[in-house]
Amino acid sequence: MTLKLSIVVGNPKPRSRTLKVAKTLATELFGPLSQGAEVIDLADYRDEILEWPSAKMDAVNARVADSDLVIFASPTYKATYSGLLKVFLDRYPANGLSGLVAIPLLTGADHAHAMGPTVNLAPLLVELGAVIPGRGFYFVIGQMDRMEEIVKDAAEQYAADLRRVAAVAEMLPQLRGLQKGMQH
Amino acid sequence: MTLKLSIVVGNPKPRSRTLKVAKTLATELFGPLSQGAEVIDLADYRDEILEWPSAKMDAVNARVADSDLVIFASPTYKATYSGLLKVFLDRYPANGLSGLVAIPLLTGADHAHAMGPTVNLAPLLVELGAVIPGRGFYFVIGQMDRMEEIVKDAAEQYAADLRRVAAVAEMLPQLRGLQKGMQH
Amino acid sequence: MTLKLSIVVGNPKPRSRTLKVAKTLATELFGPLSQGAEVIDLADYRDEILEWPSAKMDAVNARVADSDLVIFASPTYKATYSGLLKVFLDRYPANGLSGLVAIPLLTGADHAHAMGPTVNLAPLLVELGAVIPGRGFYFVIGQMDRMEEIVKDAAEQYAADLRRVAAVAEMLPQLRGLQKGMQH
Amino acid sequence: MTLKLSIVVGNPKPRSRTLKVAKTLATELFGPLSQGAEVIDLADYRDEILEWPSAKMDAVNARVADSDLVIFASPTYKATYSGLLKVFLDRYPANGLSGLVAIPLLTGADHAHAMGPTVNLAPLLVELGAVIPGRGFYFVIGQMDRMEEIVKDAAEQYAADLRRVAAVAEMLPQLRGLQKGMQH
Repeated sequence: MTLKLSIVVGNPKPRSRTLKVAKTLATELFGPLSQGAEVIDLADYRDEILEWPSAKMDAVNARVADSDLVIFASPTYKATYSGLLKVFLDRYPANGLSGLVAIPLLTGADHAHAMGPTVNLAPLLVELGAVIPGRGFYFVIGQMDRMEEIVKDAAEQYAADLRRVAAVAEMLPQLRGLQKGMQH
Repeated sequence: MTLKLSIVVGNPKPRSRTLKVAKTLATELFGPLSQGAEVIDLADYRDEILEWPSAKMDAVNARVADSDLVIFASPTYKATYSGLLKVFLDRYPANGLSGLVAIPLLTGADHAHAMGPTVNLAPLLVELGAVIPGRGFYFVIGQMDRMEEIVKDAAEQYAADLRRVAAVAEMLPQLRGLQKGMQH
Repeated sequence: MTLKLSIVVGNPKPRSRTLKVAKTLATELFGPLSQGAEVIDLADYRDEILEWPSAKMDAVNARVADSDLVIFASPTYKATYSGLLKVFLDRYPANGLSGLVAIPLLTGADHAHAMGPTVNLAPLLVELGAVIPGRGFYFVIGQMDRMEEIVKDAAEQYAADLRRVAAVAEMLPQLRGLQKGMQH
Repeated sequence: MTLKLSIVVGNPKPRSRTLKVAKTLATELFGPLSQGAEVIDLADYRDEILEWPSAKMDAVNARVADSDLVIFASPTYKATYSGLLKVFLDRYPANGLSGLVAIPLLTGADHAHAMGPTVNLAPLLVELGAVIPGRGFYFVIGQMDRMEEIVKDAAEQYAADLRRVAAVAEMLPQLRGLQKGMQH
């Protein structure tokens, strides 16, 4: 059994610090398993992301939707996720992220927009059918020098939350009969 | 291993239809296990819920916080959860619902406020540390004659979402060492 | 022509710093006109606010609804307005605040919940029919020593925003015929 | 004195019904004055809107920001405004819409997302410094045959709300000294 892990970054500038934070979170959460994570840097798709139809974009959207866990990361623009990330998510039909666990991650200049991941990005991902294991993660970009430590704490919280949900799932009566699991 | 299941209802009128919907959801989710569910009908605590300190309220708050899964249900007032439910939740300290899985449930007169559970009640519960397994649940009260069928569909979706999270949790590297599980 | 100005404070503790901030905002906005402002400290109504029917509460609700401008102020509890304030607002029927201008004001311990007035309290007041002249106002309670200066800046912004809307209103074609104005 | 009125439409498909609804709202609000309204159909800028720098986009952004009143209209995608509209708004610096009155307008397939204009689009515009005169406007696209009637009702409500705010603005003590008005 393997884990299909993806990282989607909605920063118009490629190789951003937001991407680095997201990768670190994946590593802290899943250790060596995270090495196979697919990284979608939406900056690489700016020419194509507003085209319909687009076989190239369809393929990217499909790979993300086929993941078990996806970290959706974006800088904070106007107190919420970037338009670039929204354009990518708009390409999905209703329930297009059904069947995956998603972690909303926003980076920002200060704490003033710390509610963004929980009140803006999380509901958007939930609308698409994803399940969020706890809070959204907000990272103040000025704390890059302590980034690994802060991300490690967040990862431990997500791990605890994931296990807590798993413990409840074990109590579901029809568990064995209906379990779908991961078939990758 | 047992499941500690609670239902909190924020309707100022006791024995509401909102309470009935919440109970049905518990039954559809956990079958016979749901029979031990504790029901907190906040209408019964109107005299005490705005008193500080209150040993009686402290005991109720503690029992809810000690649950594995809680359905928080309320009628829709002004497009969101009732003030009565908020008064109850305000009694918790920061992270007062940490360690539990919560399902947000709002009933309403029509579909106009269908976003309420996901954009209002879910972020409130998440702020307190709860994990929400998927969407919030909105029930149009005029559909009481089809209630069991609608709730059954919602329960199946929650069950699928809980298992999906459980499958991801199994991939966490330190699972055995750190698992806390349910000790009730 | 007079201004009917009210202040509603949703802090369970009476005579709070939140109340003081709201009063200062009224003074900075309207100068001597603010001296006739009616202050509703909801802490004084804790015994009655969850009773139905209540002639006493009906009278308070009616006086607030009859105002031209109301400052709705609350401490931040769980990243949003207090349950006490919500209980008061829940007593209104649909559109119960139609016909008034409202300023949402939340005080908080730090900047982490600075989005609360705009994403939580403002939409609640708008749902009731109020018009919000600009941003919600968030005040970090640790800055009480600089409170007057900070509130003065906010008041100037609200004044500028009110005038901006007034300038647009002047362009409405049927202005003279339909104007209702203030008849107090 | 003239009114500078703009309409911004965030539908990736040009000449959409959303655009038609927005134009009708402008006409119902301002009558003949609305004929000079500038319409920005963002579908026409898909090739350029994700480019930085872009003199062409800068010019469009500047014209919108220089308006007195702007209707920001979008179809509902994933329960909120389109990514295309967000990409356009992301191009503004902080407070980039300061000094204008904005009406948030979302069209949608049914009533399930009727809260979107008020809980999602309005806070976004407010974050940029705009003032919203009342509720966001949600239009169910299946009601195009009754569109003019529905939009007329909404326009009357906005007109009443604008006048209400204007009446409060008249009570501001320093009105004459500081008034900026419209200088176009």
